[in-house]
Amino acid sequence: MLATSPLAALRAEMEKEGVQAFLVPLADVHQGEYIAARDKRLQWLTGFTGSAGMAVVRTDDAAIFVDGRYTVQVARQVDLETFSHQHLHDHPPARWLGEHAQKGDRIAYDPWLHTAAQVEAIADKLEGTGAELVPVKENLIDRAWDDQPAAPLGKVIAYPESMAGESASERRAKIASMLKDAGADALAITLPDNIAWLMNVRGGDVPYNPMPHSFVLLSADGKADWFIDERKFGTDRADIDLGGVTVRTVDSFGDALKAAGSARKCVWIDPNWSPVAAKQIVEAAGGSVHKAADPVTLAKAHKNSHERLAMRAANKRDSVAWVKFLSWLDANAHKRAKAGNPISEIEAADKILEHRKEANQFMEPSFESISAADGNAALCHYAPVAGKEGKLEANTIYLLDCGGQYLDGTTDTTRTIAIGDVSDEVKDRYTRVLKGHIALATARFPKGTKGHQLDALARMPLWQAGLDYDHGTGHGVGVGLSVHEHPQRIGKQVNDVELVAGMTITNEPGYYEADRFGIRIENLCEIVEGEDGFLELHDLTLAPIDTRLIDFSLLTKAEVDWLNAYHARVRNEMEPQVSGEVKDWLIKATEAI
Amino acid sequence: MLATSPLAALRAEMEKEGVQAFLVPLADVHQGEYIAARDKRLQWLTGFTGSAGMAVVRTDDAAIFVDGRYTVQVARQVDLETFSHQHLHDHPPARWLGEHAQKGDRIAYDPWLHTAAQVEAIADKLEGTGAELVPVKENLIDRAWDDQPAAPLGKVIAYPESMAGESASERRAKIASMLKDAGADALAITLPDNIAWLMNVRGGDVPYNPMPHSFVLLSADGKADWFIDERKFGTDRADIDLGGVTVRTVDSFGDALKAAGSARKCVWIDPNWSPVAAKQIVEAAGGSVHKAADPVTLAKAHKNSHERLAMRAANKRDSVAWVKFLSWLDANAHKRAKAGNPISEIEAADKILEHRKEANQFMEPSFESISAADGNAALCHYAPVAGKEGKLEANTIYLLDCGGQYLDGTTDTTRTIAIGDVSDEVKDRYTRVLKGHIALATARFPKGTKGHQLDALARMPLWQAGLDYDHGTGHGVGVGLSVHEHPQRIGKQVNDVELVAGMTITNEPGYYEADRFGIRIENLCEIVEGEDGFLELHDLTLAPIDTRLIDFSLLTKAEVDWLNAYHARVRNEMEPQVSGEVKDWLIKATEAI
Repeated sequence: MLATSPLAALRAEMEKEGVQAFLVPLADVHQGEYIAARDKRLQWLTGFTGSAGMAVVRTDDAAIFVDGRYTVQVARQVDLETFSHQHLHDHPPARWLGEHAQKGDRIAYDPWLHTAAQVEAIADKLEGTGAELVPVKENLIDRAWDDQPAAPLGKVIAYPESMAGESASERRAKIASMLKDAGADALAITLPDNIAWLMNVRGGDVPYNPMPHSFVLLSADGKADWFIDERKFGTDRADIDLGGVTVRTVDSFGDALKAAGSARKCVWIDPNWSPVAAKQIVEAAGGSVHKAADPVTLAKAHKNSHERLAMRAANKRDSVAWVKFLSWLDANAHKRAKAGNPISEIEAADKILEHRKEANQFMEPSFESISAADGNAALCHYAPVAGKEGKLEANTIYLLDCGGQYLDGTTDTTRTIAIGDVSDEVKDRYTRVLKGHIALATARFPKGTKGHQLDALARMPLWQAGLDYDHGTGHGVGVGLSVHEHPQRIGKQVNDVELVAGMTITNEPGYYEADRFGIRIENLCEIVEGEDGFLELHDLTLAPIDTRLIDFSLLTKAEVDWLNAYHARVRNEMEPQVSGEVKDWLIKATEAI
Repeated sequence: MLATSPLAALRAEMEKEGVQAFLVPLADVHQGEYIAARDKRLQWLTGFTGSAGMAVVRTDDAAIFVDGRYTVQVARQVDLETFSHQHLHDHPPARWLGEHAQKGDRIAYDPWLHTAAQVEAIADKLEGTGAELVPVKENLIDRAWDDQPAAPLGKVIAYPESMAGESASERRAKIASMLKDAGADALAITLPDNIAWLMNVRGGDVPYNPMPHSFVLLSADGKADWFIDERKFGTDRADIDLGGVTVRTVDSFGDALKAAGSARKCVWIDPNWSPVAAKQIVEAAGGSVHKAADPVTLAKAHKNSHERLAMRAANKRDSVAWVKFLSWLDANAHKRAKAGNPISEIEAADKILEHRKEANQFMEPSFESISAADGNAALCHYAPVAGKEGKLEANTIYLLDCGGQYLDGTTDTTRTIAIGDVSDEVKDRYTRVLKGHIALATARFPKGTKGHQLDALARMPLWQAGLDYDHGTGHGVGVGLSVHEHPQRIGKQVNDVELVAGMTITNEPGYYEADRFGIRIENLCEIVEGEDGFLELHDLTLAPIDTRLIDFSLLTKAEVDWLNAYHARVRNEMEPQVSGEVKDWLIKATEAI
């Protein structure tokens, strides 16, 4: 069987192609967070199933690059005698290639799977080595992978104009006018959520991301070519606003770029998110490229009044599922743990999903639920594995981070819940996380403020104790699109996007002690403008925050006031939605402290 | 007289030179904050005496560029029929030149007065106009200015090694090793404070900045050429560590750069602070330029333990002057105002200067005192003018922002003081400024944090009320060097420099109501490292903060605790330094609230 191992098969293709190395990124052509079965090339080659990574295969050796989260997993899944294990950030592929490249080496890559920025970073490190980066016409793994699955054919549905607040034609005209202003003739769009927004559709080619895989070439006159497999359209096609749109095959996207280049057109291509192939094709044909962020990204982030109403409604429905779940958890978790029959992480995740499924417009979860008992919660991206999942034992804390995709909006919430009694240390840390959450929740800031200016507010109560958390504080969320939506962000890293009214953003400080416990309190928020023109966050999430974990001596009066006001609002909006024991629990959980 | 007006004389030189425009910046060759009489070319040409501005003279028209602070002043000082008034930031010279340039125009500039970054910005705007930027060999104003003063000859003195903590030879060796690491053969240093630090000297060619005008070319072997007028040396010369240093004339700096270029050397030149002439000379002679921030700038900002002790001592002495001044002010201001004989702004500024002169090691003020009564304080950079100065009237607030240059350290402090009763509005604003000051004073943050991450802490209490201030929150301060020291800064703008222990930084939020009042509370601080490795600010300034202006209902318990602890420390450290009425006042002013 050795001769037909994936690695041997790939090396055979490398030899045919006359190249000494091939890059195998995790990404698909859409740079998506989740990828389809046929795009799991890295997994096929190495066995690695993590959410970030890359392999480099050379004639005589190979390396796999993963980050610190996957140190254990990579050893379990990948043959580390064949693939040397490298750190994705501390010793990234570009640097490794620069160190190992020999004069005359042809290092091959699939230009559809790498952005222009990524390729430039690698080219920089190869400078002076005499090695050459070579794009291949067909992915070498696709050539070697005999039983590669077919591309997905998720159904495309029309997105109601009443929710979008504007027709797809209006959206295309709006973006087209931006092309004119920038002097570009066309815009190449390769991000699925940008296309779903622009076309007012939803789809389902990968889990959690309800949008179709396709490409769009939008002209400055508002007309568009949409490169999509027509089999994805069902009876909904008639409801889709296709005014000025020509539907074409996915394969003809490259031809269209080439035609634009030959016609000496200037094509707007996002250097950080679009495949470098698009740029290479346009330039090789004689066209020029306008390198800038896809204008749809920012337009989509500025939710209009219809989208804002839709998001509020979806989040309210999702909060009802939370209230039902939290009530069930409090009624059962400690009791069952004491009885030796603890709730499992998967049972808990299934329970809230069951409540979500009772809600109108629910489509699917918005990401893989992080249902994490005890020490598992210290892994920020933990997901329970059936048969090995943790149990919600007595006198521990449990963290649940999950959300739903509703047609009218996406949700993302985290709560950390006491099961029995917990230590003073846990209460201290929980209270500091809560204080940080409140600091951001109560912040007001002038127009022009960027996310990196606000990040320290959420960290300061932890910083005061010499503690911190190693993730961002807030990310954008789409309207029934991606749960991680660019470009706004609150974090330590500089983010050049001004926060504006109508953006959504999470507020999610946390604290983690490896192997011991993890805490996060996350609300999804909308940025709103006050009468004085200053901006503030308005909570979309309406789920009780566990007050049993609070060390009240650490809270200021203003913080207590915020918590009581939030809980009063939660009670006011949730009480009419629930009854019986759930209602009784809600009233108790939202009592003023 | 018209034919010999400065403008006519300059135009005559332009004609001789065959150029159609000449740029007249305010800056001198050292990009200094204060300039010598012979460098006041903009003032000679236009009459303008402000601290930021530029003129462009063309054959048929001319423009003067100043910022919003100088709208009134420019109209008073400059003939705006001759010089059209432009906004320095909204319509900067580069853009104006781009709009007005004609094909074939030769736009001349003195390459010693512009940095590489500034010239590039102008060249960018001229692209496509057909106009050309032309460096001149001799400044056209210097050729036209008959009675131009001579260069200053401030005395150079040795800086005690006991204060510096290391010899000049050690400093040169340390920087030289950085040149080696960067692959540079030499470093061109043109910033006076960097040279004073590197050579362990002080000087006095311009007010407020006790360092000599000169240049240094430091080699990677630690040897240096020092281009300085030897007449500046007195008997102190023997005390200056000149090991490996060759003293040369100022004029020979250009020749030395040319020689380095001819020898194909790589010279490190700061593109943002050094004259573009240095780069042009090296490159024209065949050498190469390493473009990066002068490494002395960051090395100087990281104060060693000796410098930190020296700064603490200087600031303690300066705080004694503040205590004496504030005591005098409280005893006299309201009484004299009611008696119709109010204290004047200049009298108050002179009074604190008198107390500074009583202190050891005092050299001179560290900047022009901002002594501002009532509405004058709304101008952030106000300075009283004799005969037109404001008076400290009853029931107003008075703002004093001033500092001293001591041989062992530089100081910078602002206090805002009540004279009689003030309105609730003023108390509200003062308390918000104080809350912001306390937020930054009590902040703790991990290594790697940059100033732009902390800025919002100081603004949030104002932001909560829809208010803000239009200046930075903190700047670095030198050790007996410049009161505005790069590169660290706390402000809204991104600053890429990590804050580290040993840096000094001011904490100075404020609030301003045009024509009505101005508030600022400023302490100079040292960044210190806690036992857990987190960083925090430690106050160097020890002057009472006026508690009569506080609305106590707005303070949290933690804020009251900070204020009481600060005042306890002020009392503890200042009480042994004063006696009699001053001591009585100190005890009252530092009472716990």
